[in-house]
Amino acid sequence: MTTPPLALHPDRLFPADPGVRRLASSLYDRVRELPIISPHGHVPAQWLADDVSFADPTSLLITPDHYVTRLLHGHGVDLADLGVGQDSFDEAASRRAFRILCEHWGAYRGTPVRFWLDAQLGDIFGIEVRPSAATADAVYDQIAERLGHPDYRARALFDRFGIEVLATTDDPCDDLAAHRRLADDPSWDARVVPTFRPDRYLEPLSPTWNTDVDRLAETSGIETGEYAGWLAAMAARRAHFIAHGAVSADHSHLDPRTDPLTDAEARHLYALARQGDIGPDEAVALRRHLLFQMGLMSAEDGLVMTLHPAVRRDHHLPSSQAYGHDIGTDIPVAVEFTDALRPLLNAVGTHPGFQLVLFTLDETTFSREIAPLAGFYPSVYAGAPWWFLDAPDAILRYRAAVTETAGLAKTSGFIDDTRAFCSIPARHDMSRRLDATYLARLVAEHRLDEDEAREAIHDLVDTNPRRAFKL
Amino acid sequence: MTTPPLALHPDRLFPADPGVRRLASSLYDRVRELPIISPHGHVPAQWLADDVSFADPTSLLITPDHYVTRLLHGHGVDLADLGVGQDSFDEAASRRAFRILCEHWGAYRGTPVRFWLDAQLGDIFGIEVRPSAATADAVYDQIAERLGHPDYRARALFDRFGIEVLATTDDPCDDLAAHRRLADDPSWDARVVPTFRPDRYLEPLSPTWNTDVDRLAETSGIETGEYAGWLAAMAARRAHFIAHGAVSADHSHLDPRTDPLTDAEARHLYALARQGDIGPDEAVALRRHLLFQMGLMSAEDGLVMTLHPAVRRDHHLPSSQAYGHDIGTDIPVAVEFTDALRPLLNAVGTHPGFQLVLFTLDETTFSREIAPLAGFYPSVYAGAPWWFLDAPDAILRYRAAVTETAGLAKTSGFIDDTRAFCSIPARHDMSRRLDATYLARLVAEHRLDEDEAREAIHDLVDTNPRRAFKL
Amino acid sequence: MTTPPLALHPDRLFPADPGVRRLASSLYDRVRELPIISPHGHVPAQWLADDVSFADPTSLLITPDHYVTRLLHGHGVDLADLGVGQDSFDEAASRRAFRILCEHWGAYRGTPVRFWLDAQLGDIFGIEVRPSAATADAVYDQIAERLGHPDYRARALFDRFGIEVLATTDDPCDDLAAHRRLADDPSWDARVVPTFRPDRYLEPLSPTWNTDVDRLAETSGIETGEYAGWLAAMAARRAHFIAHGAVSADHSHLDPRTDPLTDAEARHLYALARQGDIGPDEAVALRRHLLFQMGLMSAEDGLVMTLHPAVRRDHHLPSSQAYGHDIGTDIPVAVEFTDALRPLLNAVGTHPGFQLVLFTLDETTFSREIAPLAGFYPSVYAGAPWWFLDAPDAILRYRAAVTETAGLAKTSGFIDDTRAFCSIPARHDMSRRLDATYLARLVAEHRLDEDEAREAIHDLVDTNPRRAFKL
Repeated sequence: MTTPPLALHPDRLFPADPGVRRLASSLYDRVRELPIISPHGHVPAQWLADDVSFADPTSLLITPDHYVTRLLHGHGVDLADLGVGQDSFDEAASRRAFRILCEHWGAYRGTPVRFWLDAQLGDIFGIEVRPSAATADAVYDQIAERLGHPDYRARALFDRFGIEVLATTDDPCDDLAAHRRLADDPSWDARVVPTFRPDRYLEPLSPTWNTDVDRLAETSGIETGEYAGWLAAMAARRAHFIAHGAVSADHSHLDPRTDPLTDAEARHLYALARQGDIGPDEAVALRRHLLFQMGLMSAEDGLVMTLHPAVRRDHHLPSSQAYGHDIGTDIPVAVEFTDALRPLLNAVGTHPGFQLVLFTLDETTFSREIAPLAGFYPSVYAGAPWWFLDAPDAILRYRAAVTETAGLAKTSGFIDDTRAFCSIPARHDMSRRLDATYLARLVAEHRLDEDEAREAIHDLVDTNPRRAFKL
Repeated sequence: MTTPPLALHPDRLFPADPGVRRLASSLYDRVRELPIISPHGHVPAQWLADDVSFADPTSLLITPDHYVTRLLHGHGVDLADLGVGQDSFDEAASRRAFRILCEHWGAYRGTPVRFWLDAQLGDIFGIEVRPSAATADAVYDQIAERLGHPDYRARALFDRFGIEVLATTDDPCDDLAAHRRLADDPSWDARVVPTFRPDRYLEPLSPTWNTDVDRLAETSGIETGEYAGWLAAMAARRAHFIAHGAVSADHSHLDPRTDPLTDAEARHLYALARQGDIGPDEAVALRRHLLFQMGLMSAEDGLVMTLHPAVRRDHHLPSSQAYGHDIGTDIPVAVEFTDALRPLLNAVGTHPGFQLVLFTLDETTFSREIAPLAGFYPSVYAGAPWWFLDAPDAILRYRAAVTETAGLAKTSGFIDDTRAFCSIPARHDMSRRLDATYLARLVAEHRLDEDEAREAIHDLVDTNPRRAFKL
Repeated sequence: MTTPPLALHPDRLFPADPGVRRLASSLYDRVRELPIISPHGHVPAQWLADDVSFADPTSLLITPDHYVTRLLHGHGVDLADLGVGQDSFDEAASRRAFRILCEHWGAYRGTPVRFWLDAQLGDIFGIEVRPSAATADAVYDQIAERLGHPDYRARALFDRFGIEVLATTDDPCDDLAAHRRLADDPSWDARVVPTFRPDRYLEPLSPTWNTDVDRLAETSGIETGEYAGWLAAMAARRAHFIAHGAVSADHSHLDPRTDPLTDAEARHLYALARQGDIGPDEAVALRRHLLFQMGLMSAEDGLVMTLHPAVRRDHHLPSSQAYGHDIGTDIPVAVEFTDALRPLLNAVGTHPGFQLVLFTLDETTFSREIAPLAGFYPSVYAGAPWWFLDAPDAILRYRAAVTETAGLAKTSGFIDDTRAFCSIPARHDMSRRLDATYLARLVAEHRLDEDEAREAIHDLVDTNPRRAFKL
């Protein structure tokens, strides 16, 4: 049997109908080379500040990418064998892990991970054969060899990927030193901005909450013994982030409710929480109130508020206990936005400084809640398909579900939300191809004129993320 | 730059594949000229009774159409600037509002509003250029000029639109004088029928409930101090509506539950409500019981019961306080039908006089609940895609989700549900094009023979609404 | 008017685009003749053990198939007139029922029932005209004539259908005598396996629960007066089923929650239930605990656990009282898997002996819950589209919703779940055509190489069900 090639067809993801495909291809050509704007992701700024080189194929392409590891786990592979949660992972282990991936190449058929991996291997590392048991070592060796070149250090890759803006995700107490070093570095002129992610400080039931809030006081220099101090300390850290270039604050809780308490209730529940005496329902009530406060602060200080709610984190506790968080065992749950956001949107929904981007893993909310909200409220944007929904058919479902009610202009533009640095260009490329596919269909069905589609594809890739994220 | 034309392509909304398109086009040709049956809408009967002429383009095409205004609001336009909730709105303001719409033409890309507006401008007013800042005044002037002609008065337009039946939506205490004048007018032979819409009389928590129920007594001549009187007064008003041609009673509450109370409980809660002492949960319980009673009355008097549930009305209270209801700030919530309707369907689901048409904004219920209910109960019909779902992709999703379980014959046929008189033909035309598109796909996939599709397209446009609404 | 033919187009269900159709057709050709693996269904083993012949067209094709009868009921036909729940139904009644079906042929337009009926009539009985009032008697006569032939007895049909494995569904107290007779029959070499279906023994609120559990004691020879006895008796009956070839245990409750109680709580609630003193909430709590225990037993004894939750059985009580269960009046409700299954999956989700196949009638769970669970947990498989979703567009939605997150390999393969023996080949054929259609699209969109699609179509039809059901 001959080794099948790794094929990166120029028309991949475009629709099969020849006429629509030609339209899609021509729309895509207008944006394929545009700079990448990545307003939400998880690549460490330190990689760029230090211009790191990457140790081996596995630690770059497999271990940090829970999209990759979760499906191998679903086929019976131990996460440990993929380097997840391992302190030391030598070259032999790295090679074994890479072989496991190659042997399970068929497990990714029909998934976006396959598209991303193909593009990473082919476009970045010049691989020309399909990974398999037979080719695993050769593919590994070729990637490992490339990683030794200076062209494959973090900054060189960043340039090659054509990234104009990259947002990281950071703890409010982070000193943002890596961001500062980048900003101060005269040899660096791209924009790497932090994102304010305060979830843990809003969850009084989290076992670390009290120490987190202590650290917040220490970092901000503002006492957090009482509720007013928490607000002031948070505002101070937000200002610190804004001073370091942040444009958004990201929030991810089990639900997105924003029910305000009275000031007296908030003070009371906060005091209970600080004493370690808060009950589960009270803790949820306090968190919802604090999320409301975060929204008010966003209206005040201008940080775009983004919501990524409704995931049962660490669903399989034994795995999380063994390997930590963000390892692929987070499972979505249903979510409700209409009533959940009503208090916040009644308070600041038409405030000129407020912008709110709604992400979801519950597709039912696209046409039922998110698009109607984005269609009416000037502040609300329908966030791009996120996580499990960042995939070809899901992206097309999103466009079909959202556009008819909210239009194209009230969508956020793409976010890659990735820890897998090398997958960034492939993820944006997928999104551009699918936006072109969607618009081509509208043109082919005479729902949009072609000159408008040409303008719209540029907007979706460039204008929309700049507007939604104030970039 | 040349001004782009306003293009009304003959094949718009048909699928791109040439073979399927030909099929769709030939199916559409069989029904494109059929009379319009509009069994649910919001055009005032008085316009036709008085054969009004329309003052200006904005008050005809923009201000009353919350589909149009909500998206402008979502782009930061004040509703006041569009005439919403304004007592006086002079020609200059009307022209300015129209210019705002034209400047935001791109906001409607990919939305059905764009299709409707294009069709209104092109087909009714002969506009041949795409609206924009550059063309706004010329477009405005041309429409304004036409509106001065007798051909553009309400009755002439009604004739030109080819409307055979138009249902309005009316308060139970409405005297239906406009309907009576039309019925008595020898120069008028079309059918304009009222629809019984008693929502406010079923919601004891509404601030106007007690005065509403007082008025019900006054209008009906039946005391409503006690529960039995409410039932009798309602039955009397339903009879009044039936005598004026009504064929359906429409109901829109936050949920569609129909849990009956015992007679004693109902009397008790009603008495509490009349005293202003009813609590929130009791009020909901009473409303669900009264909805059950409305269903029993429908089985008795034959008014088709239609349900349009699960919208959070007036989501943004500041806007509703400033501008009133029905201004685009109603946002859907999830809904449940299976258990909600069980008491009613156990009581009258197989009653020969009972017909129940279920509408939803929660697409999840199409395949999960509505189609299974319509497939089993002879009384139940799957209502056409409503409001935000009255849009090309949503309509095709509806057909795909409902037909496989309920068949074509248990769907209600199209309703336009509009306040925008001139959009009626465009809305029905969109629906006909999409039904043709759906059926063409079934034929092309050899799931339906072509002779059956020809019969089916006629049924969907004509037979089904007549049967579902007893017309 | 000439009588339209009953057309079984060779390309039916394939997509319209000529290029994609050719791909789909060539993929389908690779699997069309593969043996049928039917791991979940409701055909009685006794039919095969006794090699029954079938009395008449109606009792074979209409009466037992609630997919057929429910839609006729939805058009006003009495179930009694179709033989449902009738003790005696003579030839004249059978002929009348068949005529009713033929007269309502149009009611099935666009439904999968139409596809299945066409295939049964055409492929099995050689019918060449479309059923209608005009052809009803001739069609009836031709089928009746064929049923008299030995070629149309149960075993001959079974052979002709190419069934390799057929699973039945059985009560835990069933002695499985028919299965044993088949196993002991030297002239029979196909595999007919029982399925353990213990629902009623887990529902303490069921009116028959106490007598059911008494019978369980009697059958197993293990006292069920106390909770420990229930567990031991269940384990014994599972062992009995395994000894008779069972590979799976099937569970269908209103929700799939698996919240364990403490042993003391379980004993207490069980005792209350046995005394007839258990309350509704306690009964649900006990049922959820018992479902958890069933999961643990599956991990222990290796029976694949399948879940078919969230149906409101006997929605229309008057019909169930008149005609019994499974008559088409079961209506789905929304369901939640993520939190519901967490206790069970934390206990045995990575246990090597445990396999869990999740079915749903709530399509929202495919992308939101089922695919994420199947993608991470080695034990979890996404079950094929079930019941109302076993239909062309729903099947394609399923593939599009599940594959991107779970891949192709973590789906269960097709199950027909049918009581309608003759529809088995048509149901599997539909599934194969649609899997080919889905894969052809992936190839046409350059998301999958053609050699991979050829491997994948074989996996979906053959490898996947063998793996998911341990066949």
